[in-house]
Amino acid sequence: MAARSGEFDLIARHFAPIAQRNPAALSLKDDAAVFSSPPGSEIVVTTDALVADVHFRNVDSPETVAQKVLRVNLSDLAAMGAVPGGVVLTTGYNRDLSEDWIACFAKSFGKDCEAFDVSLLGGDTVGTPGPTFFSLTAFGYVPAGRALRRDFARPGDVLAVTGTLGDAALGLSVLAGELQTLDAAHRAFLQDRYWVPQPRFEVSQACMATGSRIAAMDLSDGLAGDCRKICDASQVGMIFYQDQMPVSDAANAVLAQNSSRWTQILGGGDDYELLIAGSKDDIAALGNRVTVIGEVTERIGEVLIRGLDGKMAELASGGFDHFKE
Amino acid sequence: MAARSGEFDLIARHFAPIAQRNPAALSLKDDAAVFSSPPGSEIVVTTDALVADVHFRNVDSPETVAQKVLRVNLSDLAAMGAVPGGVVLTTGYNRDLSEDWIACFAKSFGKDCEAFDVSLLGGDTVGTPGPTFFSLTAFGYVPAGRALRRDFARPGDVLAVTGTLGDAALGLSVLAGELQTLDAAHRAFLQDRYWVPQPRFEVSQACMATGSRIAAMDLSDGLAGDCRKICDASQVGMIFYQDQMPVSDAANAVLAQNSSRWTQILGGGDDYELLIAGSKDDIAALGNRVTVIGEVTERIGEVLIRGLDGKMAELASGGFDHFKE
Repeated sequence: MAARSGEFDLIARHFAPIAQRNPAALSLKDDAAVFSSPPGSEIVVTTDALVADVHFRNVDSPETVAQKVLRVNLSDLAAMGAVPGGVVLTTGYNRDLSEDWIACFAKSFGKDCEAFDVSLLGGDTVGTPGPTFFSLTAFGYVPAGRALRRDFARPGDVLAVTGTLGDAALGLSVLAGELQTLDAAHRAFLQDRYWVPQPRFEVSQACMATGSRIAAMDLSDGLAGDCRKICDASQVGMIFYQDQMPVSDAANAVLAQNSSRWTQILGGGDDYELLIAGSKDDIAALGNRVTVIGEVTERIGEVLIRGLDGKMAELASGGFDHFKE
Repeated sequence: MAARSGEFDLIARHFAPIAQRNPAALSLKDDAAVFSSPPGSEIVVTTDALVADVHFRNVDSPETVAQKVLRVNLSDLAAMGAVPGGVVLTTGYNRDLSEDWIACFAKSFGKDCEAFDVSLLGGDTVGTPGPTFFSLTAFGYVPAGRALRRDFARPGDVLAVTGTLGDAALGLSVLAGELQTLDAAHRAFLQDRYWVPQPRFEVSQACMATGSRIAAMDLSDGLAGDCRKICDASQVGMIFYQDQMPVSDAANAVLAQNSSRWTQILGGGDDYELLIAGSKDDIAALGNRVTVIGEVTERIGEVLIRGLDGKMAELASGGFDHFKE
């Protein structure tokens, strides 16, 4: 076992300073944190865990792992139309992990909390003989009754997404040693998209500002698989248009070399972009912050894609299922 | 890898039924859960993780592990004077764990949630090549400004505890094959105290009912170590009286055989009893649900114990520190 501080010292040294921002955390010195929600709001809560070499690579830097742990959860808050409030973080450190790694993780985590105006309210720090894991629970607030829900899609709605699709999956391919002929800037861009998701609060707040019924979810496991969750919840079907998919310059360069990489654009995970369904006017109000990629149909559970060749096909699921992978 | 359902199937089959109790969970089918806190209340949040073969034994039954995961967190809510509301549960299952184990875990977890009137609001289920882990975040409610805090102890206060001390530590000794000469009923009692903690909501609500300043915390790492957390937060010292420590019949039988087991009574973890500091009258109002074991002094950070021989000594910490153990 590496020489390292004990649990209480680790918390006091690296995490308590981050928690000073909000008195609700009671400086991490009590049994629990105490906070209140703004009047007229509901509390949105979500939790996501990351396990080393399952959800991130053991060799990834502590700085980007910290950002990913926070941001995959903030992305869920954005998907509900919530503004972020606080987080509690449980860390299970492999016992051979150095205190340097933990210090870098905590520093980056604190910086990212500040960037998103999020308070670290509490947590638990344990040792594990297995792979390092992080489990984060995030809270946010929405005006009561106004959350963007997956069961809000209706036939005739327009489907739109934020950002570009498939970059993170291609980034993981780059990190696995593939796509070596791609130019360095494109490779770097794709890797970064895998390492550091961008919670889309600006777009989700624009959705909230419409005051309308809008369905939203974040794409963590790929468009093809995740879109079915809105279909299930709303009892609808969907049609996508392949030629309207937003694709980054880097991903376009990959597709130019090998069009079979489209499976990663359509089905690859870790994008954390928002899939949004709403009336044509409401989606139009979001402007060029989103790209229209399809429409909602009344054919329950049927997900079609109009290919680049103009032909319709079923969009295979390909959702990443952690046990089957 | 054992044949087993994928992540989504596991959630749908074993956890979604538990979540039906509260519409706030959105049947675990959205990005996050949405709930509201009672008017005039604050939200109390706590999180605790358990790792197989660190915080529970790999051979422990899924039924008691489920109870422990829930109850160690509920115990923190009780320590704040909160009534329980909801929980989110992250489970990292070792990939060789059978679906039977998971089914038994989920069933017991659901039953215990019902017993404590707690809603499962969401969670995350992941696979891990390492030891199985659970990370639970629990929410509860307290009337605004009324939480029982660790920094509320004052010199002259009386110290009291719920239940009996050291049973869980002795139970772990039994499970490790020690204490074989103890009679079977005592051994069973001690093991059960290790497996299934009892969150002390009745006492903490009685504390709340006094309407007074009362400090409380739950003893997860042993009295000797944990009491210092109140000393630190309140800037006080403490004196305990060994002859007043509440000891179960089973633990008394152990002590009769070997008085060195007192170190487990005073310093052993996993009791999840409440340590309470308040005025003499307020503690008296709690009646025989608590045992007075000492008093608060103004000697900051000094923790003394008057031994069975009547002599004063420093109470060594012996708090369980997960990295140093």
